[in-house]
Parts: sequence; structure tokens; C-alpha cells
Amino acid sequence: MVDTPPKLAAVEPIEQIEDLRRSIDNLDNALIAILAERFRLTEKVGKLKAAGGFEALDAERERSQLERFRQLATAYGLDMDVVRDVMTKIFQHVKSRHQVLLRGG
Amino acid sequence: MVDTPPKLAAVEPIEQIEDLRRSIDNLDNALIAILAERFRLTEKVGKLKAAGGFEALDAERERSQLERFRQLATAYGLDMDVVRDVMTKIFQHVKSRHQVLLRGG
Repeated sequence: MVDTPPKLAAVEPIEQIEDLRRSIDNLDNALIAILAERFRLTEKVGKLKAAGGFEALDAERERSQLERFRQLATAYGLDMDVVRDVMTKIFQHVKSRHQVLLRGG
Repeated sequence: MVDTPPKLAAVEPIEQIEDLRRSIDNLDNALIAILAERFRLTEKVGKLKAAGGFEALDAERERSQLERFRQLATAYGLDMDVVRDVMTKIFQHVKSRHQVLLRGG
């Protein structure tokens, strides 16, 4: 008589989704921690710019960042539309904060 | 005679800004890497949802995520408007991709 191997229970789709969501939640924790640190640093940049009377917006810097992001998106197989939309949203908040700092806010 | 300590050269604001920007660039590398992994996982969720005929949008999940983000933003001293705008932008891309998958795309 041949032993049949024990049957492995299939993981239900709903359990797979819950497991993926736990990983997504952990990634979101990391995203928000990095965003917090990024804003801590752009706050310092904004204060230095305001003290030096520099423009809030540096169009050349932004262009070179977006070009760098495009290369990263390609390397990671990530849709550039996602990267552009997310990073542009971050830039908007930074710029509006830098304008407030420039007005002495 | 008392030795005077060597005078430390002040770091110019422009150099400070350049130094901060190098850190910001490194954080952006991390942000984009995490975004790439997040989309890899939401792609799997989207395929499982499409196979199971689940809705692309889970409003209750989204509400609980935003509540969790609010707590994280507070803990990190990060403006909730930034977190909401950035994460909502990410959600929009995920939902539109899940809708495509649901239509068998």
C-alpha cells in the first residue's frame, strides 16, 4: 500500500488578501515615517532659503528630480504616472510651506 | 599664554542646502522603492479580488487605513493634509488599476 501524502489545505483568497494587506500596512508605516523625515529636512531647506532670500521654487532642481524618478521608476518596474502624481503632490506641499516661510510665517 | 582654539569655518547656507538635498534624494529613493513594492502587492490583491468577483473598492478598509494614518501622522509630527493627499493619490491609482483587473484587463 502506498501512502498518499497529506493534502495541504489551499489558502483561501480572502486569507491571501488579508495577508497581503498586513504587508501593505507595514509598507505604509515605512512610507509615512519617510515622509515625516523628508518634511523635517525640507523644513530646514525652507528656513535656509527664507533666511537667504532664495526663491521657494527651484525649477531646475525639480526637473532633475523628476528625471531621476523616471529612471528609478523604470528600474523598479513602477508606472511613472504613479511616481509623478505622488511626488508632485509632495512637491506642492513643500512649495506652499516654503512660500509661507519666505513670507516670514 | 592661552591657546585659542582653531576657528571652525561656518558652513555656508548653500552648502547646507546641498547637504540636505542629498539626504532628501536618498529618502526619495526609499520612497520610490517602497511604492514599487506596495504596487506589486496591490496588484496581487487586485487579481485575487477580480478572480473572486469582489468589489475594486473596499470603503471600510479605506476608512480604517486613513484613521491609522492619522495616528501615525500625529506620532511623527507630520501634517495630516500631506498624508491624506499623498495616500489618497496612491489609493486612486490602486483603485483604477483594480477596476481594470476586474474588467479582465
